[in-house]
Amino acid sequence: MNGVIVPKATLGRLPIYLRYLKSIRADSKNISATGIAKALGYGEVQVRKDLGAVSGKGKPKVGYDTDDLIERLDAYLGLNKSEQAIIVGAGKLGRALLDYNGFSDFGLDIAAAFDTGDTTQISESGKPIYPMEEFDNFCYRHAIRIGIITVPRDAAQGVCDLMVKNNISAVWSFAPGILSVPDHVVLRQENLALSLAYLTKQI
Amino acid sequence: MNGVIVPKATLGRLPIYLRYLKSIRADSKNISATGIAKALGYGEVQVRKDLGAVSGKGKPKVGYDTDDLIERLDAYLGLNKSEQAIIVGAGKLGRALLDYNGFSDFGLDIAAAFDTGDTTQISESGKPIYPMEEFDNFCYRHAIRIGIITVPRDAAQGVCDLMVKNNISAVWSFAPGILSVPDHVVLRQENLALSLAYLTKQI
Repeated sequence: MNGVIVPKATLGRLPIYLRYLKSIRADSKNISATGIAKALGYGEVQVRKDLGAVSGKGKPKVGYDTDDLIERLDAYLGLNKSEQAIIVGAGKLGRALLDYNGFSDFGLDIAAAFDTGDTTQISESGKPIYPMEEFDNFCYRHAIRIGIITVPRDAAQGVCDLMVKNNISAVWSFAPGILSVPDHVVLRQENLALSLAYLTKQI
Repeated sequence: MNGVIVPKATLGRLPIYLRYLKSIRADSKNISATGIAKALGYGEVQVRKDLGAVSGKGKPKVGYDTDDLIERLDAYLGLNKSEQAIIVGAGKLGRALLDYNGFSDFGLDIAAAFDTGDTTQISESGKPIYPMEEFDNFCYRHAIRIGIITVPRDAAQGVCDLMVKNNISAVWSFAPGILSVPDHVVLRQENLALSLAYLTKQI
């Protein structure tokens, strides 16, 4: 998307800055880091660091140009041209992710899901769930680079291989078990049970 | 659960060791760290470190007593007496978590979900989804300490407060927005959109 990689926590705050800036743009041509920090309850140093990662510094005594900062955040988050992702596995979790509307904050659009079955279904929010036969063609036509795996353990590596074969370069898997991908592919395996267990150990 | 807190990655491997040890216990009274490392494709140093965190060292030339190690892992993971958790919010994600069977690897049992509505429903896997009116009573009777929030943003803080009031001390939330809890409560807020966005930035 962009050459700069910011820390995950920073990335998580960028949509919050953006929402705030858009809410004040009509009234404030400029805004200082101090002003943003106060409005959002963040530390000033953090705000400067976060915004510095995707923009230049604000001007002394003037601050940031609000419109310019909005534009840079929009661009960094990729909101001007959303990146499409697909899901394989349309069980409960797959459908929950397919219909979740929080991805758009980060310029991501879950375009479709795929599952076994002969006919195309439509999810609650109106998104298509295609038969697996459509997978290769869809990925090619839409130049898909991001794949989400929500199939059972035994099917996961096969799905992962299929994604890689179709030029998907970021794989996010919720299947248990270890997946392997070639070096050029980034993989994150989410283990929800482990996350809860780790939290519970801290009581 | 237990006084020792191991790193999350270690915790994630413990059920894998346990599954392997149970598969060989009939044939192998003892097992060395080297043997475990080979069988699972892990490094030997890592295996020693992981197991050292929850057990003693293996004996030189003999290795670990398989049954003893199984018992210690069982105890650490709390498999002898599962801890019950509850979910508030029985939408798609809530139901997906309610019916997910991977929590038992870590001695966790999602006992029930709660949602608005007047009658008790039953999930696909046969678990109860109770009306909110039952919440206080259920938490009290089952001494629930773990709560999972899968309600929309606007309802999340209210649900979180209700959990805290009912002596829940670990809260795992999937709702967007920032929650606040008292100091004695551990809170983890999952931001699935952010996780995917962060992954995508690394392509």
